[in-house]
Amino acid sequence: MAQTSVILRLELNHEQVTFGDVAGVIAQAGGDITSIDVIRPGKASSVRDITVDVTEAAEARVIEALKQREGIKLVNVSDRTFLVHLGGKIVTQPTMPIKNREDLSRVYTPGVARVCTAIHEDPKKAYSLTIKRNTIAVVSDGTAVLGLGDIGPFGAAPVMEGKAMLFKQLAGVDAFPICLDTKDTDEIIRTVKAISPIFGGINLEDIASPRCFEIETRLAEELDIPVFHDDQHGTAVVVIAGLLNALKVAGKRMEHIRVVVNGIGAAGVSICKMLLAAGVSKLVPVDRDGAIVQGETYANPMWQWLAKQPQVEAVHGSLKEVLAGADVFIGVSRGGLLAAEDVQRMAPGSIVFAMANPTPEIDPEEALPHVRVFATGRSDYPNQINNVLVFPGLFRGALDCRARRINEPMKLAAARAIASVVTDAELNEQYIIPSIFNEQVVVKVRHAVVEAAILTGEARRIPPDFR
Amino acid sequence: MAQTSVILRLELNHEQVTFGDVAGVIAQAGGDITSIDVIRPGKASSVRDITVDVTEAAEARVIEALKQREGIKLVNVSDRTFLVHLGGKIVTQPTMPIKNREDLSRVYTPGVARVCTAIHEDPKKAYSLTIKRNTIAVVSDGTAVLGLGDIGPFGAAPVMEGKAMLFKQLAGVDAFPICLDTKDTDEIIRTVKAISPIFGGINLEDIASPRCFEIETRLAEELDIPVFHDDQHGTAVVVIAGLLNALKVAGKRMEHIRVVVNGIGAAGVSICKMLLAAGVSKLVPVDRDGAIVQGETYANPMWQWLAKQPQVEAVHGSLKEVLAGADVFIGVSRGGLLAAEDVQRMAPGSIVFAMANPTPEIDPEEALPHVRVFATGRSDYPNQINNVLVFPGLFRGALDCRARRINEPMKLAAARAIASVVTDAELNEQYIIPSIFNEQVVVKVRHAVVEAAILTGEARRIPPDFR
Repeated sequence: MAQTSVILRLELNHEQVTFGDVAGVIAQAGGDITSIDVIRPGKASSVRDITVDVTEAAEARVIEALKQREGIKLVNVSDRTFLVHLGGKIVTQPTMPIKNREDLSRVYTPGVARVCTAIHEDPKKAYSLTIKRNTIAVVSDGTAVLGLGDIGPFGAAPVMEGKAMLFKQLAGVDAFPICLDTKDTDEIIRTVKAISPIFGGINLEDIASPRCFEIETRLAEELDIPVFHDDQHGTAVVVIAGLLNALKVAGKRMEHIRVVVNGIGAAGVSICKMLLAAGVSKLVPVDRDGAIVQGETYANPMWQWLAKQPQVEAVHGSLKEVLAGADVFIGVSRGGLLAAEDVQRMAPGSIVFAMANPTPEIDPEEALPHVRVFATGRSDYPNQINNVLVFPGLFRGALDCRARRINEPMKLAAARAIASVVTDAELNEQYIIPSIFNEQVVVKVRHAVVEAAILTGEARRIPPDFR
Repeated sequence: MAQTSVILRLELNHEQVTFGDVAGVIAQAGGDITSIDVIRPGKASSVRDITVDVTEAAEARVIEALKQREGIKLVNVSDRTFLVHLGGKIVTQPTMPIKNREDLSRVYTPGVARVCTAIHEDPKKAYSLTIKRNTIAVVSDGTAVLGLGDIGPFGAAPVMEGKAMLFKQLAGVDAFPICLDTKDTDEIIRTVKAISPIFGGINLEDIASPRCFEIETRLAEELDIPVFHDDQHGTAVVVIAGLLNALKVAGKRMEHIRVVVNGIGAAGVSICKMLLAAGVSKLVPVDRDGAIVQGETYANPMWQWLAKQPQVEAVHGSLKEVLAGADVFIGVSRGGLLAAEDVQRMAPGSIVFAMANPTPEIDPEEALPHVRVFATGRSDYPNQINNVLVFPGLFRGALDCRARRINEPMKLAAARAIASVVTDAELNEQYIIPSIFNEQVVVKVRHAVVEAAILTGEARRIPPDFR
């Protein structure tokens, strides 16, 4: 059981309880007091912050026991997760101190005017003389945040801040969270275009399907900086990376496998596209109504696009029906859809990526005995499909070569780079995907992305290590 | 003459020149070589960076002399001002490192979901659990940048970054530059509203008049965070601060003085409003067509507003005509409008703030013998009217008390606070305004702004030092 640390702010009525009573209540409920701060002393009553180490299960018991006890008022409960969020998770920092008037006249008026004029005369200089070179926006409208759905721009902010932290720590990319108070497609596009001049790239995040497709497509067309919707392509890139290695383990080839993708939303569409780009010839996209079938007509423009692809099978059926005989199952849908007998009916040496969060499409314990390679989105099983493996190195590469956009070859290169971090000697059923803390990941992804951008003509600058 | 340091990147043709020749050319033109780096060695030619200390006047001579000389190719000239701008002037920084999976699960998924949910359920918590508490946007459309005019969003960025540096260094406020790729009033308002959730305040900057008025007014009405157009009110606050102390020096009272304000644009309007709020009873606003006269009709809505104020004089005339007999001249217009005889015709003990940049409305050397107190926007004369004295402390105070807006009493309190930093013992003709590096300024402005916000009901939080 995970141990956590909570800080309980208690107001104690001294006529009714002693601190010894409090300590007794906490200990009996399973908590371990590690420190005490007196916030407001007093004769009749006092307020104290009591830090308690406790298992996650016991936390509720401790709180309940304290609430029950006469003379104790529970003012507030803070755990470490909330504490690290106090005041937010990123700051802006000047690159140099302004120590005197001479410094001031360089970074601000009057000296700055010459720099402004130089950029005005040649806007490309924004890349050398402003933060554009290394700064991206992490943009969300808060409509599809984690598994929480439409929780709005305020609720979305902690995710965007967390992402900005990861960009900086893992890849040195300066990222700033932009949380939009609008859900209108045109308005989102207009707003991102309007604020784009200071940014070298746009990472779209947690925007609901289907409007996420139009927003990304139109922004990518209308802006000359990379626009990348991580929920679509980040997941897809890691899936392909994992699949490349899983196929090695299973001794199968991309050209021969039959792949079922369940959940054709933001991530599912991008996964299907990347599978086709990677050479898959038998693809079965499945959504709530069953398989999306070649030759049929669909209102959803992405499903319609899939129905026109020759690699998509022309066979109707429910998820369970089409899964029979498949080599690969990729789920980006919802928990508990499949049982052991369903994966048993797949082809021998089957590969299952069950990435629904927090509950996978099939219980790992049920699936594991019947599949060759198994991966989830969770960190408590091997082979976590986590897009933290993708976005830092991808944007590092795109910024370093001033890519106009992030195209399919760049994404495929990123997938191959992630897969390559796992050496043939290391590769096995339990280890098809490297850890997000493996420093090789960003280095290799960046290198592959720059190379692909140069080859496909998207790079506007050749980084020194490629000259 | 100001000494500066330039880095000259030279390509030398070794058949035509030696490094000794180069050193000779630079020395003869008045430059002093302080360091040399070989960028690309070579037999036939080489590229070197040569750092030269030089007066500003001699810089052009050195460059010209090098260009004239056969065998030397001047590849690039960088001076320190450009060098400090390389890569931009601010970065984003995580508040803590993500060292392991446990850290990751707190600041990002899955732990962050509980924080998102808490904010979704109570949006006020955005102030404690996100960067909103301490972060503002510095927003410009790039249409009125310094004295450079409409140089666009890319050209404006270095000013906005410089401002963000000052916010952080002087007042600990995190500020992020937003440069808008639109000049449309409605579009600017829509965009700022759309991106507002992550910010605790909006500093508008270098937006052309007259649309700056509507943009600020409507944003202030429609958002529940402070919106402040610095070009209008920042200057006005320091002018009032300087005037309060200048009047003490001259032995005059706000109620009795006759004030001429020249240049009724963004800053001029705000100065007039604050003068009225501060108790001035005889005011003469002047623009290109002469005095704005009480009772007349004007197309410009701000001029029309002034023409309705009882304190505005009902007297026609040119700037020079109405200036006769005035106690105070405040210029936010353009250089060289006035001569010595014009200020000689003012009332005895006259006060002249000539703030046109870079050339004041009257040459300081001409004016000084004839006025009691003289101030400019420049740093090379005493009494610099600089809004760096205002915005850091003002936003520090507004954020600390979560003010809904920045009202006239808060601005007037800021002006009094700035004036109060100069003690009666220190006060004299040459010292009516404190230095921007005086640490008392931010402390006093913040305190005064919080106090005024609480008194006028704009504070949503009482900071601990006010409880």
